[in-house]
Amino acid sequence: MTQLEGSHILSVNQLSLDSINTIFSVAARMQPYALRQKRTNVLDGAILGNLFFEPSTRTRVSFGSAFNLLGGSVCETVGMASSSLTKGESLYDTAKVLSTYSDVIAMRHPEPFSVQEFAKGSSVPVINGGDGANEHPTQALLDLFTIEKELKAKNKAIDGMHIALVGDLKHGRTVHSLSKLLCLHKNIHFSLLSPKELQMPSYVVDDIVNAGHKVSIHDAIEGYASGADILYQTRIQEERFPSQDEANKYRGKFKLNQQIYTEHCKDTAVIMHPLPRDSRSAANELDNDLNDNPNLAIFRQADNGLLIRMALFALTLGVDRQLEQHERPVNWFVRQS
Amino acid sequence: MTQLEGSHILSVNQLSLDSINTIFSVAARMQPYALRQKRTNVLDGAILGNLFFEPSTRTRVSFGSAFNLLGGSVCETVGMASSSLTKGESLYDTAKVLSTYSDVIAMRHPEPFSVQEFAKGSSVPVINGGDGANEHPTQALLDLFTIEKELKAKNKAIDGMHIALVGDLKHGRTVHSLSKLLCLHKNIHFSLLSPKELQMPSYVVDDIVNAGHKVSIHDAIEGYASGADILYQTRIQEERFPSQDEANKYRGKFKLNQQIYTEHCKDTAVIMHPLPRDSRSAANELDNDLNDNPNLAIFRQADNGLLIRMALFALTLGVDRQLEQHERPVNWFVRQS
Amino acid sequence: MTQLEGSHILSVNQLSLDSINTIFSVAARMQPYALRQKRTNVLDGAILGNLFFEPSTRTRVSFGSAFNLLGGSVCETVGMASSSLTKGESLYDTAKVLSTYSDVIAMRHPEPFSVQEFAKGSSVPVINGGDGANEHPTQALLDLFTIEKELKAKNKAIDGMHIALVGDLKHGRTVHSLSKLLCLHKNIHFSLLSPKELQMPSYVVDDIVNAGHKVSIHDAIEGYASGADILYQTRIQEERFPSQDEANKYRGKFKLNQQIYTEHCKDTAVIMHPLPRDSRSAANELDNDLNDNPNLAIFRQADNGLLIRMALFALTLGVDRQLEQHERPVNWFVRQS
Repeated sequence: MTQLEGSHILSVNQLSLDSINTIFSVAARMQPYALRQKRTNVLDGAILGNLFFEPSTRTRVSFGSAFNLLGGSVCETVGMASSSLTKGESLYDTAKVLSTYSDVIAMRHPEPFSVQEFAKGSSVPVINGGDGANEHPTQALLDLFTIEKELKAKNKAIDGMHIALVGDLKHGRTVHSLSKLLCLHKNIHFSLLSPKELQMPSYVVDDIVNAGHKVSIHDAIEGYASGADILYQTRIQEERFPSQDEANKYRGKFKLNQQIYTEHCKDTAVIMHPLPRDSRSAANELDNDLNDNPNLAIFRQADNGLLIRMALFALTLGVDRQLEQHERPVNWFVRQS
Repeated sequence: MTQLEGSHILSVNQLSLDSINTIFSVAARMQPYALRQKRTNVLDGAILGNLFFEPSTRTRVSFGSAFNLLGGSVCETVGMASSSLTKGESLYDTAKVLSTYSDVIAMRHPEPFSVQEFAKGSSVPVINGGDGANEHPTQALLDLFTIEKELKAKNKAIDGMHIALVGDLKHGRTVHSLSKLLCLHKNIHFSLLSPKELQMPSYVVDDIVNAGHKVSIHDAIEGYASGADILYQTRIQEERFPSQDEANKYRGKFKLNQQIYTEHCKDTAVIMHPLPRDSRSAANELDNDLNDNPNLAIFRQADNGLLIRMALFALTLGVDRQLEQHERPVNWFVRQS
Repeated sequence: MTQLEGSHILSVNQLSLDSINTIFSVAARMQPYALRQKRTNVLDGAILGNLFFEPSTRTRVSFGSAFNLLGGSVCETVGMASSSLTKGESLYDTAKVLSTYSDVIAMRHPEPFSVQEFAKGSSVPVINGGDGANEHPTQALLDLFTIEKELKAKNKAIDGMHIALVGDLKHGRTVHSLSKLLCLHKNIHFSLLSPKELQMPSYVVDDIVNAGHKVSIHDAIEGYASGADILYQTRIQEERFPSQDEANKYRGKFKLNQQIYTEHCKDTAVIMHPLPRDSRSAANELDNDLNDNPNLAIFRQADNGLLIRMALFALTLGVDRQLEQHERPVNWFVRQS
């Protein structure tokens, strides 16, 4: 029994390097199931309550699919309109009731700390799928897992690497959470490349510096990303701006395309992005002409998200050692990977 | 084969004391599965059509989870927007088509008697999950089941008990349906405690009196609930009022908290509520300070709802005698109950 | 391995008479599973991504139920609101990500050719569930399958038959797609009966004529349907008209009821409709008084849609030869068919 069995996964702050390594090692064992080389029905009969009070197709489907891939059933709730919360019910009451209907819960909610509040009333483990501007720990974990895998394939490691975080560093909760996790490692060079108005909050910068890492802050990609092993691009979080016009000022700045990559980045630099990327021409933060670049890791991030979520379900439900004994053959057509 | 196999469950009026006892006895046998002490996949391969044309997270998830707990798959439809009903299709046509896609249907709809109308076209059993202001028979059944269990734990019985129904007795369909079911029992004292404008409709009162029960009608809790074995509190059904202002007149009246309970109720009185309870301070019909009161049965009601719905699926699909032979072990982390 | 294994099903244009016959022969083998005479869990562990970016209860549930009937799990997305597409994500990116979460995808989208665009990024087979005004190939297949079955029961065949297509032939994509499939057959008489303003587009008529079939065009049912073996009625597609008023001009024209049927049609003529039919009195394109007419095939069309979709899943996933070896008993109550 690991320390995660029966636990909530609410914040990156609760994770030690040890527990992260446990999660990553289970995630790696999930790969053959995700690729359909084999399957396991270790959670046959278990129910996931997939509660997306704030809609998010990608994250919801990733959680649901991860649970299905382990053999479980998924019961979904999307949006607030149909929720008792609109009738004045407390998150505690909602949790007391809904948690009796499932074995584990994945939850997204637009209000910061609402998932933590909900967890207090829940009788089953709750995994935070994003609580407003606050946290999105599974995204941070899949990002860190991706960085480790991508660097390892190039015979590098997280300790000692150079990462450039690019774009809207003020509103992007993914770069905040990722930075916290990176602080558990050693000797990293952070290049924070953003418009002056969208700089990384000082409390995050302070954490990085206090952990002993090197920080460079600039307001351009060009000239400042040439040493980076990882380029982590972000989307202008327009929903967090006072107006669309205010957001539009920054859309199209700090964009990355094949030409900029060729001229200003190492030819081994890994390109990441939390997705979705905005492909409308005005924004274009990550040009489609990068799609054939083998270092574009954005879709591998999505693949890794599935593995991380499978690992979290297996660990919180304590079945990570039973995967193999519940294996079944795969009989149907499987995509080439 | 019981009389419920292949039947629709549309109204409390169709239920005899005999069939209710059958449902309750099957529901009791569902407890170990709901608690995950063991599981059964007796309905593996069966499909529930969970049709919530009027959204209701709690009831929908309860039906879906109940079906999953028996091993079946759930296909959901939520809301009217995506429905052919908006293109002028009759409920009969909708039923003819959708019922071919599942083995049993749970349905909620905002129009009174629409579920009954739908059932006429359905080729599979239909369970009424609420048809507007008309009926919500599974709620009435879970309430009665809860009353029986709670009283039994105190060495009492429904026959001869004293129940106080409190709050919006005019619009609360749950208290109407529950009253009908209680009429099948004997020698009950009903205290109907509500604002004068929100009194129990006279046809319900007549039924209670005609069944030989005692009725007391008052416009306060204080002074009139002291003999009650069961306190059944309700929410102001604001959606049934002509305006929000009209509803607000009554919010916050007839509230129950620990102080009122201590001063005006028996210390064994069981507190029930159909949920959700409104926790906004203006309403506060059932204060959070009652959460540690062991006689607060509201979350046990939700647990019992799961058992009742499992029982109804097992009975209408005729598998109530096969639960044990389809048992499987539970391998994963299980909450403490 | 058939030619459909691992393929997308995007358009009727990709289907040869050979592949259609393969689909129909597998669909016929699906009947006992759909009727619950037995069941198969050949796709146990497989996941369907049921992506309905344009809502459609009937088609969505039919795809989902078809997949469940083969033993698989379904993960659904309904509507655009929660989609990354609203954040400027390209269909290619959406497909790259969502296709890693499932084994096969069924997709409906309001934009013509969007499903084809999506398929380019998908790593798993994509089945078109309707792309706006363009195509709805599974509807065309189920219609053709129904025509073949209904005629066969009357010792007739598609080759040499007389079909009357009735109503809004301009906007009804189902009659366009069905016509294309019928062009693969020989010696058919098409009667195209519609208001002058809602006539079949000339490119469809040209295809029919060029395939060697006979075409008659009229602006009434009465007098022009007497030779038809099949009457294919359609709904006024009001959502494709510039205004509701414009659509209302045609609602209630070209209606069919028992009296018109008796006076103007062969007494063996099969009545079809893509559903939903509009039962509001002003429209009434297919009167409820036809419900007892044994030649009313509209609900058999829905039954056949399930079989066709089961067949397409089995064929694209390459499990059509393994159905029998994964059979399990059905233990529960089964409707009379």
